[in-house]
Amino acid sequence: MTSIDSTVHAPHATPASVPGPALPVQPRAGTLRPLDLHAVSLHPEGYWGTWQRLNTERMIEHCRYWMERVGWIGNLEAAAAGTLPQARRGREFTDSDVYKLIEAMSWEHGRTGDPDLDAQIRELIAIVGRAQEPDGYINTRFGRPGQAPRYSDLEWGHELYCYGHLLQAAVARCRTSGEDELLAIATRVADHVCDTFGPDGIDSVCGHPEIEVALAEFARLTGQRRYLDQAALFVERRGHGRLAEIEFGREYYQDDIPVRDATVLRGHAVRALYLAAAAVDVAVETDDADLLAAIELQWENTVARRTYLTGGMGSHHQDESFGTDFELPGERAYCETCAGVGSVMLSWRLLLATGRARYADLIERTLHNVIATSPGRDGRSFFYANTLHQRTPGSPVDPAKQSRRAASSQRSAWYEVSCCPTNVARTFATLGCYLATTTDDAVQVHLYTAGSIRADLAAGPVELEVGTDYPYDGAVRIRVVTAPEGDWRLSLRVPAWAEGATLTDDAGTRIAAAAGGYVTLPRALGAGEGVTLELPTEPRFSYPDPRIDDVRGAVAIEAGPLVYCAESFDLGSDESIDDLLVDTSVPARRKGRDGVVVHGRRESPIEHAWPYGPTAAPAPRTDQDIRLVPYSEWGERASGTMRVWIRRADAPAAG
Amino acid sequence: MTSIDSTVHAPHATPASVPGPALPVQPRAGTLRPLDLHAVSLHPEGYWGTWQRLNTERMIEHCRYWMERVGWIGNLEAAAAGTLPQARRGREFTDSDVYKLIEAMSWEHGRTGDPDLDAQIRELIAIVGRAQEPDGYINTRFGRPGQAPRYSDLEWGHELYCYGHLLQAAVARCRTSGEDELLAIATRVADHVCDTFGPDGIDSVCGHPEIEVALAEFARLTGQRRYLDQAALFVERRGHGRLAEIEFGREYYQDDIPVRDATVLRGHAVRALYLAAAAVDVAVETDDADLLAAIELQWENTVARRTYLTGGMGSHHQDESFGTDFELPGERAYCETCAGVGSVMLSWRLLLATGRARYADLIERTLHNVIATSPGRDGRSFFYANTLHQRTPGSPVDPAKQSRRAASSQRSAWYEVSCCPTNVARTFATLGCYLATTTDDAVQVHLYTAGSIRADLAAGPVELEVGTDYPYDGAVRIRVVTAPEGDWRLSLRVPAWAEGATLTDDAGTRIAAAAGGYVTLPRALGAGEGVTLELPTEPRFSYPDPRIDDVRGAVAIEAGPLVYCAESFDLGSDESIDDLLVDTSVPARRKGRDGVVVHGRRESPIEHAWPYGPTAAPAPRTDQDIRLVPYSEWGERASGTMRVWIRRADAPAAG
Repeated sequence: MTSIDSTVHAPHATPASVPGPALPVQPRAGTLRPLDLHAVSLHPEGYWGTWQRLNTERMIEHCRYWMERVGWIGNLEAAAAGTLPQARRGREFTDSDVYKLIEAMSWEHGRTGDPDLDAQIRELIAIVGRAQEPDGYINTRFGRPGQAPRYSDLEWGHELYCYGHLLQAAVARCRTSGEDELLAIATRVADHVCDTFGPDGIDSVCGHPEIEVALAEFARLTGQRRYLDQAALFVERRGHGRLAEIEFGREYYQDDIPVRDATVLRGHAVRALYLAAAAVDVAVETDDADLLAAIELQWENTVARRTYLTGGMGSHHQDESFGTDFELPGERAYCETCAGVGSVMLSWRLLLATGRARYADLIERTLHNVIATSPGRDGRSFFYANTLHQRTPGSPVDPAKQSRRAASSQRSAWYEVSCCPTNVARTFATLGCYLATTTDDAVQVHLYTAGSIRADLAAGPVELEVGTDYPYDGAVRIRVVTAPEGDWRLSLRVPAWAEGATLTDDAGTRIAAAAGGYVTLPRALGAGEGVTLELPTEPRFSYPDPRIDDVRGAVAIEAGPLVYCAESFDLGSDESIDDLLVDTSVPARRKGRDGVVVHGRRESPIEHAWPYGPTAAPAPRTDQDIRLVPYSEWGERASGTMRVWIRRADAPAAG
Repeated sequence: MTSIDSTVHAPHATPASVPGPALPVQPRAGTLRPLDLHAVSLHPEGYWGTWQRLNTERMIEHCRYWMERVGWIGNLEAAAAGTLPQARRGREFTDSDVYKLIEAMSWEHGRTGDPDLDAQIRELIAIVGRAQEPDGYINTRFGRPGQAPRYSDLEWGHELYCYGHLLQAAVARCRTSGEDELLAIATRVADHVCDTFGPDGIDSVCGHPEIEVALAEFARLTGQRRYLDQAALFVERRGHGRLAEIEFGREYYQDDIPVRDATVLRGHAVRALYLAAAAVDVAVETDDADLLAAIELQWENTVARRTYLTGGMGSHHQDESFGTDFELPGERAYCETCAGVGSVMLSWRLLLATGRARYADLIERTLHNVIATSPGRDGRSFFYANTLHQRTPGSPVDPAKQSRRAASSQRSAWYEVSCCPTNVARTFATLGCYLATTTDDAVQVHLYTAGSIRADLAAGPVELEVGTDYPYDGAVRIRVVTAPEGDWRLSLRVPAWAEGATLTDDAGTRIAAAAGGYVTLPRALGAGEGVTLELPTEPRFSYPDPRIDDVRGAVAIEAGPLVYCAESFDLGSDESIDDLLVDTSVPARRKGRDGVVVHGRRESPIEHAWPYGPTAAPAPRTDQDIRLVPYSEWGERASGTMRVWIRRADAPAAG
């Protein structure tokens, strides 16, 4: 693998009037090159193709419908009509969700070419354009008579955060449809930000990082160094206490420690992850190896000590923040869906920069167990938080109503703070981009799902067909449809859990594929040839670090990239799931396509007037087979209780 | 024991111009009668006497100093000066803390007669009086030009909550010094509340219960049925969704289920406990056996499933609320100090009503392990929350500054929300009241500490001298100084943990004292006679209900009423305490007056890049003696880490 500064991609192009490479992250340099939307097709019946289709057919429209209904699009119309602040509805950051919707629609339109979607996008862009003020400022919550002044509340106001999502929408639109009105709007915004917050401007940052990662990509889109410099300035300014001390401390918005001095992610998880993603962009664009190394270290420590089995990040409800090391209770695990999106954003950038398989491992884990958990299979409901243990069925959810964030075993149609649905939608719309990358002479496949991958290598174009029922089956068949004329290699990721994986070519030659890296067939494959990667996806037991208190004496069941869970539904009741124990001496076994069964016990708890006592007497237990389902599907069949970590039958009694 | 309606005390007296019975709760009926402040003296060197002396010498003055400094007393002065809202400082409920200070000072003055304190009280009362409006309304945050209108935010405004504390202050002042200006102020407030929120008034309740319990006691003080009726009306109104639906749900302020229909406490812990205390008062005053039974059931279920080993209540930081059943993580246990005060308020009322020892057991546990934990031994610093597990030393606390509520291993001088210090101060000022009660022919001693108890029984006056080093030693010597002429009995509480307790008289006759009730010598004791209660206070291991996830595989050490904890200070480092394991096969032993040592291991954790794995390999362990200190003393010696529940060495590896 080459180092970050030895592989230099094409220089920035000025915005084209025809679609350029259609992809969310286009670094100037790095170990791996991303592929654009058009290079990858997901089979509509494959695992990720099914999700992308649901996004196309339901989720995006669901988001648009709700944002009209609750008045968030209306806020921008009201800005143009001069009826603010009276007509304003929703929280301070609602503008951002309209922009995230435009971004999701733009990627989607880029992939499908759907003219109706294009018309909807144009309409939304026109609404946004009319809401912009002559100097580029745009926000429905600040700056008018009767509203707080512009930038008077950088801690909580989210003005720059909203701009960030507007810029990302413009990147998506421009890279899929070429220059249009949205690029002009975004350019005015970006220039306004540089004018206002530049070296001689307001010496502060936004309470919620997002403008940084957006300005960096906008610089990549436009080739304007000014935007990159502003992103870098925001990154460097943070961590010096420019924002106010608040109840949650300045670590809440990462203003406690300079980005390059921190050793672990902390504070509000989404903020921390968006900021770290931006820091990688800045590091890559400015050849700042120290900054990149700082973020890699933060990632390592965060993954080793502050990440849930699902890939979820963020332990606290109160401030939506990371906990301290090993503070990872399954109970009330917060694991905001948007933190999952932020984690994928960060790991993807680190993967491109370094080529290390660990980043792709976490992307896969997070996509399967956080991002695919949030939306219901109806495409019209979402989890905001993704707990690993639901003790009570929670309050029933009314699908016609906005919900508060509180934990429930049911997904909600919409939230007062509804950042997650649009974040999922924009991720699913670009899902193909995360499947594979290239170097000069090789293709690396990171995620496995049925579909096709096309790439241009130095040796010529290559086209691959992927056939698999992964994640339910570990066999991944990759066939070369078109082979480059020159020498090339195919590298396939072998997840860290995949001990015993093998790669077999058509001739039956089998090589061992070491877990936790990439396996590369040591020769060029020709057209019509293929290989089969066999990943061991039999169910397995996973044990936690003993420093994680809440899951001590418990075990989780995984199979392939999927985390499994037990639901009260399968016990024939909507009551407690907390009386189950797993017998780890009996192997877990598959049951049906995606189900798993483990042998265990069910305990009849002894009820006491006081739940602490001098004896550790065991409660009566009976044998019980426990059916498990993929965690991402929990709460789909009924309102009930759930747990990922289940007590071990061999743990001592009463604890 | 007699039933609630068979024992009827003296009818209400109109306010006297000389001090009447000086005690916070004076029920019309009930199984046990409380003793007043003057009937009990705590020895100044005894356990509780030491605390009361610290309150006298430091805490009350500390509270007064801070409330002047941060402008909370100034808010009331500003109200009179007409400089509100501009001059107002602090949160919406700051008035209440001034009233709680007056209450604490009044009880204190009642006990000590200190003329300086009396002068301070008079000065504060005059300030309050000048802030009152002609119709009785008094609040510094609402009702003026530039402020929200009166009662426009019952959910969060705390106007009635503040009145509640004013009424309780007036009860304290009147019962210790007779009628004065404060009684007149409070009467105007109470009448204003009845006029405004009566059957034909605003049909709602306060977001934070407190007015209910205060009105009930004010009715007892004044003999005015109107105030009791209003308290009852508030209790009955709640639970029908009169308050707005909020993010935390209506259970946050107990407006989800009618008080008499609920089966367990839920939502914001302090609110739930204050409301339940009021419901007991209403039940007792109106002979409502159903309402009393409902609260008893709620108490039973809350104690069996929603209470920490320390007696602490409230699991969530986000909304300061109870968790669901068995959701009791030691990590980040919230256990607000004020919830401890509320729990004592509730249990005391239930003890008086029913005479059941369980209520006194919880009072003792909570006093020792929540209320005595909050203040530092300097009398000038306080914990707001009382976690059972501190993973990191937390941010250093500046003793000259107000703190936010976030967890730290150091107590803070003052908080932006500083309800706890004054709550502790008013509790300590009345501590003697909780020691003992009477029935017609018996004295019941509930708490053991060096001091004296005087009571008037039907048979005549009795005076007892209590000598003990409890809780560090289990021997409690009670000597009769004055015996009644007629037949009488002495009953002593035997805590539920005290298996094997004995009661011995001067003749050496020893009777077994069954744990979890009262032991009564079956004869009258004469003057000069005595008994010794021997409670087994050797250290003991306590095991949790296996449904409490966070403490599974762990053990706690208790001795007498004290919960113990391990601190990093005793490991010679301020780092992790999470690598300790206790060997429960070796008995814990006392070391010194209040220390305990257990045998165990120290583990050298295996560091992994991902904290979940396929093996449960044990980490290397070395033998280690672990010194423990009373939990109430944690954080006194240094800033460090701490845990109450420690892993068991016999739990399976890696979990």
